[in-house]
Amino acid sequence: MSKEQELKWYGWGLASKNFDLSRRHNFWPFLREKLQLTSNETLLPVNLSDIKLSSSNSTLSAKFEVLLGVNAVRRDDLIRITHAMGKSYLDLIRIRKGLIQNPPDFVLYPKTEAQVLEILQLASDLKIAVIPFGGGTSVVGGVEALKDSGHIAAISLDLSQLNQVVSIDEISLLATIEAGMLGPALENALQARGYTLGHYPQSFEFSSLGGWIAARSAGQQSNKYGRVEDMVSSLTIANPIEIITTLDAPASAAGPSIKQLLIGSEGLFGVITKAKMRIHKLPTIKNYRGLLFKDFLSGAQAIRTIIQSGLEPTTIRLSDELETGAFMKMRPESESMLENALSSSVKWYLKNRGYSESPALMILGFEANDNSVKKEVKTALEVCKQFDGMDLGTRVGQHWYKDRFALPYLRDTLLDHMIMLDTLETATTWSNFSNLYKAVQKALIDSIQSFGFSPMVFCHISHSYHDGASLYFTLMAKQAKDAETEQWQGVKKAASDAILANGGTISHHHGVGRDHAPWAQREHGKLAIAALNSVKQVFDPQGILNPGKLIK
Amino acid sequence: MSKEQELKWYGWGLASKNFDLSRRHNFWPFLREKLQLTSNETLLPVNLSDIKLSSSNSTLSAKFEVLLGVNAVRRDDLIRITHAMGKSYLDLIRIRKGLIQNPPDFVLYPKTEAQVLEILQLASDLKIAVIPFGGGTSVVGGVEALKDSGHIAAISLDLSQLNQVVSIDEISLLATIEAGMLGPALENALQARGYTLGHYPQSFEFSSLGGWIAARSAGQQSNKYGRVEDMVSSLTIANPIEIITTLDAPASAAGPSIKQLLIGSEGLFGVITKAKMRIHKLPTIKNYRGLLFKDFLSGAQAIRTIIQSGLEPTTIRLSDELETGAFMKMRPESESMLENALSSSVKWYLKNRGYSESPALMILGFEANDNSVKKEVKTALEVCKQFDGMDLGTRVGQHWYKDRFALPYLRDTLLDHMIMLDTLETATTWSNFSNLYKAVQKALIDSIQSFGFSPMVFCHISHSYHDGASLYFTLMAKQAKDAETEQWQGVKKAASDAILANGGTISHHHGVGRDHAPWAQREHGKLAIAALNSVKQVFDPQGILNPGKLIK
Repeated sequence: MSKEQELKWYGWGLASKNFDLSRRHNFWPFLREKLQLTSNETLLPVNLSDIKLSSSNSTLSAKFEVLLGVNAVRRDDLIRITHAMGKSYLDLIRIRKGLIQNPPDFVLYPKTEAQVLEILQLASDLKIAVIPFGGGTSVVGGVEALKDSGHIAAISLDLSQLNQVVSIDEISLLATIEAGMLGPALENALQARGYTLGHYPQSFEFSSLGGWIAARSAGQQSNKYGRVEDMVSSLTIANPIEIITTLDAPASAAGPSIKQLLIGSEGLFGVITKAKMRIHKLPTIKNYRGLLFKDFLSGAQAIRTIIQSGLEPTTIRLSDELETGAFMKMRPESESMLENALSSSVKWYLKNRGYSESPALMILGFEANDNSVKKEVKTALEVCKQFDGMDLGTRVGQHWYKDRFALPYLRDTLLDHMIMLDTLETATTWSNFSNLYKAVQKALIDSIQSFGFSPMVFCHISHSYHDGASLYFTLMAKQAKDAETEQWQGVKKAASDAILANGGTISHHHGVGRDHAPWAQREHGKLAIAALNSVKQVFDPQGILNPGKLIK
Repeated sequence: MSKEQELKWYGWGLASKNFDLSRRHNFWPFLREKLQLTSNETLLPVNLSDIKLSSSNSTLSAKFEVLLGVNAVRRDDLIRITHAMGKSYLDLIRIRKGLIQNPPDFVLYPKTEAQVLEILQLASDLKIAVIPFGGGTSVVGGVEALKDSGHIAAISLDLSQLNQVVSIDEISLLATIEAGMLGPALENALQARGYTLGHYPQSFEFSSLGGWIAARSAGQQSNKYGRVEDMVSSLTIANPIEIITTLDAPASAAGPSIKQLLIGSEGLFGVITKAKMRIHKLPTIKNYRGLLFKDFLSGAQAIRTIIQSGLEPTTIRLSDELETGAFMKMRPESESMLENALSSSVKWYLKNRGYSESPALMILGFEANDNSVKKEVKTALEVCKQFDGMDLGTRVGQHWYKDRFALPYLRDTLLDHMIMLDTLETATTWSNFSNLYKAVQKALIDSIQSFGFSPMVFCHISHSYHDGASLYFTLMAKQAKDAETEQWQGVKKAASDAILANGGTISHHHGVGRDHAPWAQREHGKLAIAALNSVKQVFDPQGILNPGKLIK
């Protein structure tokens, strides 16, 4: 079975896997009540064979076959469909209906960096838009095969054949890795040698190193291992002019950081072909646990205190009261540790200690390869206690760890039931945290209600820093039938406006792509965007690289 | 007494302070022998009153007096001389002879950000080159008042009146600080509130926040507090178009980092007026100590192991064998702890344990405001022991700490004796460390010898990272009389070529300025430099900002 057959063409992840509501008897009634669903209507994706694509130009693709060989140029429907867009809510509602507005004319699979350069030079000469494609998991429209009026075609450049760990420098703890490598293959190769990169975004199983770097990704263990931009020692990009590799110095004062100009450039300045990444000895000791706080903001204070005291958890996450409630309902009965932890007797105990029935759940994880973990867990728990955090032990933490990549499957299940589920994220300083939290929450609730629907909006802190934290919102509502796009656009605009009006960044780790571009431009201001456009003009004079994204 | 009168116009630091050889009986004979000096000739700076400057255009300065008031526009000789250049070796050999090739026509002292903007707009209209001036300590020609053929004048923009801590956000641990604030005032203001920035470059006493950010400075305590680019939460620059403030999010995925494009831009993209900086609670416990290693490379291995194990010393430095020897000779007799530590009986003991008479000295410092320091010192010392590091206790460390800003004064003293002393620095990966060390050392020795002089070249690791370290070289030689500039240029070129040929960065923390520009351009490559030039064109369309530097 090919990769494309293994993957769910109309949704997230493996075709063989789904988020099974039938194993979660508490969740569906909870959702129905919260979202005020009255019917049991479902709407399934169209048949793949019913999707009709615009025709593809074989004269053009033949020119690339000369460069790469016939097997590296693909024009069949499944390939074009799976490279037409990413995995955003907007993408999924379109693809389920068979609306493929921008299929690439064809998809290229270069095997070497030199081939990437040749492709870009030919595409530049021919004025063909080139969209770099790693794992295709963008949730902001980053890989949609858009073209401008000046382009004669749009092609997807699939980097999946650039998939090797090139070398490991065990002295400097650096690994040179090709950009098309997906998370599991990358970690398997490193871990076989005793190392880890430690980058685990929720998309880990299906996203690529190049995509992480292109979109400034942050993994769930970024407190210890850093965001992807902290991990890159040097990177190599190919653009229509040449191949550039930045120097692999651990630090430099040789002017502005070219590396930090390329990281986050989302394919507009060039195609990332490989990177030299900072790796770590594989941790042998892990301790992930759950804690309950009386409310979200007291838990947030505990996180702030832990991070500012210099402790370095690998992961520290905190769900607000509503998310904690939903998370409890969501667990399969067989594993419902948290539900058990909150059994009636425990609830009585909590209540007596002043906890509400809607506490806030923290996941706190430490990893190391020495016994420092024990001491750090102890110190962190002492801090949590100051903020009335109650330790639930390691089982809740272990369950979170085991299931940490599973949640994106829920969206497809809910789409079957005509429920909108989207996520969006931002970050701000600690002093502005509560303000931004409330403002975005209100904007989401108000905008969903303005369409006449009952909202469910919750939030967690996914990443934390010395000076602030990220806020990761999940929103659910009944879909506005036949107006799904307008409904989503309304909600997205309301939330994005609220983020910018209240001092947040338009994205903490999802990137900009097409969907965030108007707000990213407001965030940076016209002059900074003009500067980025001028850089693009230098790196991509014909303007073929990923048009319609980021700076447009 | 004005600031300009308090400072040594022809050299480093305070006029009242010098590096007194007479208190160091061992050092001068040691130097004379190593450098094969045969005479006791001295050459003192010219008299200030003998320096004749080109005339200054009073019609132009009057236009700025309208904007700022007469007191904020200065044209007197002392002010023009002290703003004509920085504190590099090349600067000092010229100024001591009274050769002021590029005095600014006048010097402006804006009091507000709005005035900076007005100045830049007027200068842009008039085509006047504007050179931002913080503390004036650049050692790479970064503040020399150069102009291009298209400029009708060059003016120095002195930011010393922008010198306030604007606000402190004690929740987010962020302080908004004006760019002209010098190190001591900045730390005093923060420490009075119980905080520290923790940025202590060797120039700390005389350099400014804006200068640190403009040149990507790294302080002696960067292992704990980070380099300056890690400390900036947001920054504000004024350019001829407008004032830009980057968003103060703790992290963002909203495209390439505009902040990291401005940090290190050395005044070419705008004048830094203020920054929001990450601050820390003032540490209450400090432990600085000395250790001896059998040789430089085994000490370097100890540093690598300490850093890669996740320990976080505040400072970890290691002098090579020659620098350790010079350091021992250099201490005033009354304080010569290290000399005492190496008294004949100790030397006998060391020899019996396999140490040579030329060991390598490490300074290892930990700071915190809890008792974690004790445990971390213990763990670090255990690592050092694995590499035969011998703990000398805290007195050597304390002496280093006390005198850590004193060494730049030595250069002036040696210049009196017609001795060249310069420093240069680079950084590379751990796996390339020994190669780069040997290559640059050889290049320096060979180039000094090629002029017929006896060299003294030594090196220390000043900063260290997960994947590599900096190498900080000091070179001394008898001056080539009447060919001092050519001698320096030859040595500088040889070292810089060796750095690039052997995989180092042209600067780890001194910046680029005028002196490193040709090598910075080679390091980044033509396309990246073209990109920076295109950014400059957007931010500074008339090309008035700090011409002749960085990208030229």
